[in-house]
Amino acid sequence: MPTMQFWFEIGSTYTYLTVARIGRAVQAEGVDVDWRPFLLPPILLKAGMTQGPFLPYPRKIAYMWRDIERRAQEHGVPCRQPLKYPPDEVLASARLALLGMQQGWGRAFVEAVFRLHWNQQVQIGTAENLTGALAAAGQEPAAAIERSRTPAIKEGLKAQTEEAEAKGIFGSPTFIVGDELFWGDGRLEQALA
Amino acid sequence: MPTMQFWFEIGSTYTYLTVARIGRAVQAEGVDVDWRPFLLPPILLKAGMTQGPFLPYPRKIAYMWRDIERRAQEHGVPCRQPLKYPPDEVLASARLALLGMQQGWGRAFVEAVFRLHWNQQVQIGTAENLTGALAAAGQEPAAAIERSRTPAIKEGLKAQTEEAEAKGIFGSPTFIVGDELFWGDGRLEQALA
Repeated sequence: MPTMQFWFEIGSTYTYLTVARIGRAVQAEGVDVDWRPFLLPPILLKAGMTQGPFLPYPRKIAYMWRDIERRAQEHGVPCRQPLKYPPDEVLASARLALLGMQQGWGRAFVEAVFRLHWNQQVQIGTAENLTGALAAAGQEPAAAIERSRTPAIKEGLKAQTEEAEAKGIFGSPTFIVGDELFWGDGRLEQALA
Repeated sequence: MPTMQFWFEIGSTYTYLTVARIGRAVQAEGVDVDWRPFLLPPILLKAGMTQGPFLPYPRKIAYMWRDIERRAQEHGVPCRQPLKYPPDEVLASARLALLGMQQGWGRAFVEAVFRLHWNQQVQIGTAENLTGALAAAGQEPAAAIERSRTPAIKEGLKAQTEEAEAKGIFGSPTFIVGDELFWGDGRLEQALA
């Protein structure tokens, strides 16, 4: 099966839509997905992008919530506005995502992180979200968190972020097929085609 | 027929895709379109948005060209990369667009402005683009340009820009249906639905 890379920042709002629907979308196309967590803020800061696509503008953020709600409805994806934006701290979740991808439970973990954040208002970055998502992925939370704090994972996430930057990534989600880069959940179908 | 407002900044890149395909798209849906030119930069500046969705980042601009090219291909819209971005000056074109909308030749003018800029590398804002687009819209260029410089048009464009801002618009193209705002060419189908 052909493979598509799916690069994502776990604190990104629109990435929820992709995480919630990519499984169904790729099944229909017969494509394998390589899930690649990375950290977006260091890339944006290094490039001098101090203003995001929505932050820090209240009217753009208000639009973003409504847009995501409409898109979720269109795709039949459940969506309940999270309590807080941006989340306080997502580094631990990103490290666990990388560890999980290496150990085979990453996708289940990431899906649960977003599900808790977007359906049950269990805010990403909180202890409740971390432990809930790890349990959903069949992991013993304390042990997994401990393993995600090793230098190998910390350095691995840095290296993956550098790889994202080298590939020209500047947002999440980003899909890469061959040399072609597609930015945004709205480009998922195009990337698959 | 139901009416959809189509708000646009004439210097916006992605707006080309919409201008090139909206006629076909709305015909299929049986919707009337109200074309509303406005000036985006004053709205962005007032809101403190000094960084656009693509400017001033070379890698985002490179992505933008490729993305527009792919989208144009997908929609069967001709597309040849313009010589310069951003254009030097689009105010005269925006004023003529407003005048034309009031007098019934605005849509033909705007379509020609974009066609010259995106198909024939006749850069928007140049005398060649202005006169070529006016001629395509059946207007005598010198007379139309003169009429577009009256206080009524200058003030009219300011007023329309203030209306856009009051409606919560922060980008181009923006579609408004009832109270719902849709930003981006990629949301055209959703707005029509």
